[in-house]
Amino acid sequence: MVKALIFDVFGTLVDWRQSVARHLVPYIDDRGQRLAFADAWRARYQPAMEEVRSGRRPFVPLDVLHRENLDAVVDAFDAPIDEPERDALNLAWHALDAWPDVNDGLAQLGRRFLLAPHSNGNVRLMADMARHNGWRWDAILGAETTGYYKPRPESYTRAAEILMLPPGEVMMVAAHNNDLAAARACGLATAFVPRPTEHGPGQSTDLSPAQEWDVLAHDVMDLAARLVD
Amino acid sequence: MVKALIFDVFGTLVDWRQSVARHLVPYIDDRGQRLAFADAWRARYQPAMEEVRSGRRPFVPLDVLHRENLDAVVDAFDAPIDEPERDALNLAWHALDAWPDVNDGLAQLGRRFLLAPHSNGNVRLMADMARHNGWRWDAILGAETTGYYKPRPESYTRAAEILMLPPGEVMMVAAHNNDLAAARACGLATAFVPRPTEHGPGQSTDLSPAQEWDVLAHDVMDLAARLVD
Repeated sequence: MVKALIFDVFGTLVDWRQSVARHLVPYIDDRGQRLAFADAWRARYQPAMEEVRSGRRPFVPLDVLHRENLDAVVDAFDAPIDEPERDALNLAWHALDAWPDVNDGLAQLGRRFLLAPHSNGNVRLMADMARHNGWRWDAILGAETTGYYKPRPESYTRAAEILMLPPGEVMMVAAHNNDLAAARACGLATAFVPRPTEHGPGQSTDLSPAQEWDVLAHDVMDLAARLVD
Repeated sequence: MVKALIFDVFGTLVDWRQSVARHLVPYIDDRGQRLAFADAWRARYQPAMEEVRSGRRPFVPLDVLHRENLDAVVDAFDAPIDEPERDALNLAWHALDAWPDVNDGLAQLGRRFLLAPHSNGNVRLMADMARHNGWRWDAILGAETTGYYKPRPESYTRAAEILMLPPGEVMMVAAHNNDLAAARACGLATAFVPRPTEHGPGQSTDLSPAQEWDVLAHDVMDLAARLVD
């Protein structure tokens, strides 16, 4: 019945924390400090999007929010990163490394389903990340294409409309219970793929399913094993 | 300097006329009548989009316009095609065959440039056509993504914005002089790939370049030879 799978990306498909920390090697010597910087950058992600979701700010692509947040984090860490370096560093989010199960899992799922990222990242960010990891998407959905940041319901309903499918024939795949809850509220099918170290070894959130999602899978390869004959 | 190529699709990459006629085989016996039906269907394409471009009608995806136009053409031809068959036949535009040079040409160009369709076709139509022909796009631009039908200038400027490139680093590739003229007016680079039999053997339009476009190529393989080392 499901004809298309749409994916959360940051955390679900890629290890943003280790990848961003790696891009910080030229600027910060201490590995723990690099991870703390990545965490601090990411911590400003939801509040920045909330300005847009709430209507207090017109839609801007995630690259704009990331760049603003980077300035704040550089100041907080007193890191020696100048303006051109910040522009370059902002593109770290375009070149995040996939979790090890993702590439083969997507290749298998693509033989049976339409596949699209449904991320808060903008189109160019997703296109660059697809090249970086060798992924083949049928389309790039998500915030810039739909005009709404997740978990706004319009984001999920527009995604299904663009795919020309009833919501029940579209499955949201995510490592985050709140993303799946919002998708389910719009009638989408749901698959939970936990990523228990997305936030590092001490992670306390999204370790287990908060609802009975339609599919639970250990990783994207396992998802393919469950969904593809 | 050019970093992304964006492509017109109907006519430039695919032979819509022969492909649509092929999809009509179950309904119309005579080959000449099938081609005449395809021509009549396509003849309603620009006037239907003009309703949207002019602001007289809110944006609707091309599949909606194709479906309305199909009803009119079925009536004009008094063809025995019922409603479910019309819904299925409308998807003929999702499964058009590429000109013979396109698949290898795109594969070569993709090694050097970001590639995206910039068509008046909607996202799902383009995604299905990519699967049908084995193409790999970095993103799907065009009318549904930008919110504007070509040749509205917003269509080209939004495409460059989504690609995060200055217009001069984006090259529009088309078999149609008016598409290239509109792209050039927005600052895009231009490549003309003539398709002298798009409209059949008696074609009288777009046989030669109307301006000195940045690149002239015989076909997409030739374009790759000119642009890729």
